[in-house]
Amino acid sequence: MTTLQDVLLPAIEVELQHQISRLVDPRLHPLHDMLTYHMGWTGDGSGRSAQGKRIRPLLLLLTCAACGGEWNAVLPAAASVELIHNFSLLHDDIQDNSTERRGRETVWYKWGMPQGINTGDALFVIANLSLLDLVPSFDTELILSAATLLQTACLALTEGQFLDLSYEKREDLTMEDYWTMVTGKTAALLSACCAVGSLFGGGDETIRDAYRNYGHFLGLAFQVQDDYLGIWGDAALTGKSIESDLVTGKNSLPVLFGLEKKGVFAKRWLNGPISPDEVMGLSDQLEKEGARLYTQNTADQMTDMALQYLRSADPVGNAGQELFELTNKLTGRQR
Amino acid sequence: MTTLQDVLLPAIEVELQHQISRLVDPRLHPLHDMLTYHMGWTGDGSGRSAQGKRIRPLLLLLTCAACGGEWNAVLPAAASVELIHNFSLLHDDIQDNSTERRGRETVWYKWGMPQGINTGDALFVIANLSLLDLVPSFDTELILSAATLLQTACLALTEGQFLDLSYEKREDLTMEDYWTMVTGKTAALLSACCAVGSLFGGGDETIRDAYRNYGHFLGLAFQVQDDYLGIWGDAALTGKSIESDLVTGKNSLPVLFGLEKKGVFAKRWLNGPISPDEVMGLSDQLEKEGARLYTQNTADQMTDMALQYLRSADPVGNAGQELFELTNKLTGRQR
Repeated sequence: MTTLQDVLLPAIEVELQHQISRLVDPRLHPLHDMLTYHMGWTGDGSGRSAQGKRIRPLLLLLTCAACGGEWNAVLPAAASVELIHNFSLLHDDIQDNSTERRGRETVWYKWGMPQGINTGDALFVIANLSLLDLVPSFDTELILSAATLLQTACLALTEGQFLDLSYEKREDLTMEDYWTMVTGKTAALLSACCAVGSLFGGGDETIRDAYRNYGHFLGLAFQVQDDYLGIWGDAALTGKSIESDLVTGKNSLPVLFGLEKKGVFAKRWLNGPISPDEVMGLSDQLEKEGARLYTQNTADQMTDMALQYLRSADPVGNAGQELFELTNKLTGRQR
Repeated sequence: MTTLQDVLLPAIEVELQHQISRLVDPRLHPLHDMLTYHMGWTGDGSGRSAQGKRIRPLLLLLTCAACGGEWNAVLPAAASVELIHNFSLLHDDIQDNSTERRGRETVWYKWGMPQGINTGDALFVIANLSLLDLVPSFDTELILSAATLLQTACLALTEGQFLDLSYEKREDLTMEDYWTMVTGKTAALLSACCAVGSLFGGGDETIRDAYRNYGHFLGLAFQVQDDYLGIWGDAALTGKSIESDLVTGKNSLPVLFGLEKKGVFAKRWLNGPISPDEVMGLSDQLEKEGARLYTQNTADQMTDMALQYLRSADPVGNAGQELFELTNKLTGRQR
């Protein structure tokens, strides 16, 4: 059966390509190449798996349609949020010294750090220009409101990133620090996607608030679920223990739970990097201290909150149906 | 005598500080500190000389006033262009591996590259949010036009930066490549400052075009003059030859002129880095090949173009008078 998403996803790619085609001067072809490589359209390993899931533009379009709006009119806004996300990924990869993303070499690793930073900057500018493409189709006040929502989310993104980078050297982190960080790094932009979608979809203030909260809790649920899988997911436990968040040293929710317990896990964690052969034992220890159940319950709570807000927004049509399905999929409710 | 600039400069600082004070959460104090350090307000060596000349906001405010507008109403736009400029400086310093700016340690050198990138990103976001602060005071269409002018300039900025970074490894550069690069890196934002100032000042399309062109040629004249001083200025020639553009290897206009001549200078330049004790001899050689006169004439031509467009914009009052004076000062006409 053809879903609405099957129609939206190719339309998103076309709009993204249109936005990035702003760089037409032949002198700029190599810059254009770096952008299309990062977006997953060109170069070694290009294709669907290199493009990511395009969750943010999907959410924006589905929210717009679920409010009764025309999704095709807001494609430039959908492109904008995906470009914002990708700008942050490009800089993230440099900051984390990551050589691989989605199974391919990262831009900075391929073309050098200076060009990597600049390519990220260019993506952010194109994201801002994309939104301005809505000028002929929508009321100027709506567009300025959307710009404010998105830039506010971007500020939260840089705040979250600041905290994430600062946390690397700290040993006194609490779960409260975690929530501040993931609200900025993950929830703010997802929340803005839903707020902007409902704004252009014609939702009134109550509906827009409901969608904004939906996106917020969806982001938190998604992140907590990701943290769960980072320790107890198949890839983290079987064979490829190198992918465990315990090995990469990520300050995820279960780890901070364990640190607050100040037990056996905390003692080992604070004693230096975890090797892959410790992963099985240490994840069992963390589970024994209650972190697995706590993380699972927290993900469930956040998912329930997201679904509750989504129901209160009273989404209509296929788009509404698909928002519920997407929520369940992203939060692992279908596990 | 008190000039208009004496009034504008403190008002610009207050507005910039207001914009950056968005980061109020105590957890974000260190991020706020990095921003205020970079802006020259806090930390070792803070003060007027650490703040730069604030040329871009000055131009925007003077242009607005010279069109008969109220400069105080557009202070958030003035802050926006200065923050855009500083965002690009922060990332430039990382890309060029510069440890010093305005006589002080650079942000990335002090706090690390990852935080340096993120602080630059935050500055750009705050620049975008600043412009949106104009919403209650101006027509929404004007604000969207200003946003388009500024983001288009930012795209040109990243394009110019891409070219600059690419040129480092190329030996076949021509003066045409130079103009493309400096149009993006220097002229585009100065041009946008004047275009935005005249837009909010109430200038009609002819006036706005004149100011846009004025800013463009002012930017080119300023850059060429900077290139001239980088080789034949006092700091470049006497004592501190280490500051000569010949030593830093900058692809400046005189150098590209010399390369196109394919003479003695070009041969030496392509043969590897220039040491400080070669500076006197090589700058004389470049002068002998005609580069000094050519660069001087080009700066003069660009300055004449700028002044011609400025006159055609018919600027009024003290602001108009100060625009002429600022132009002469920036382009070295008062040397």
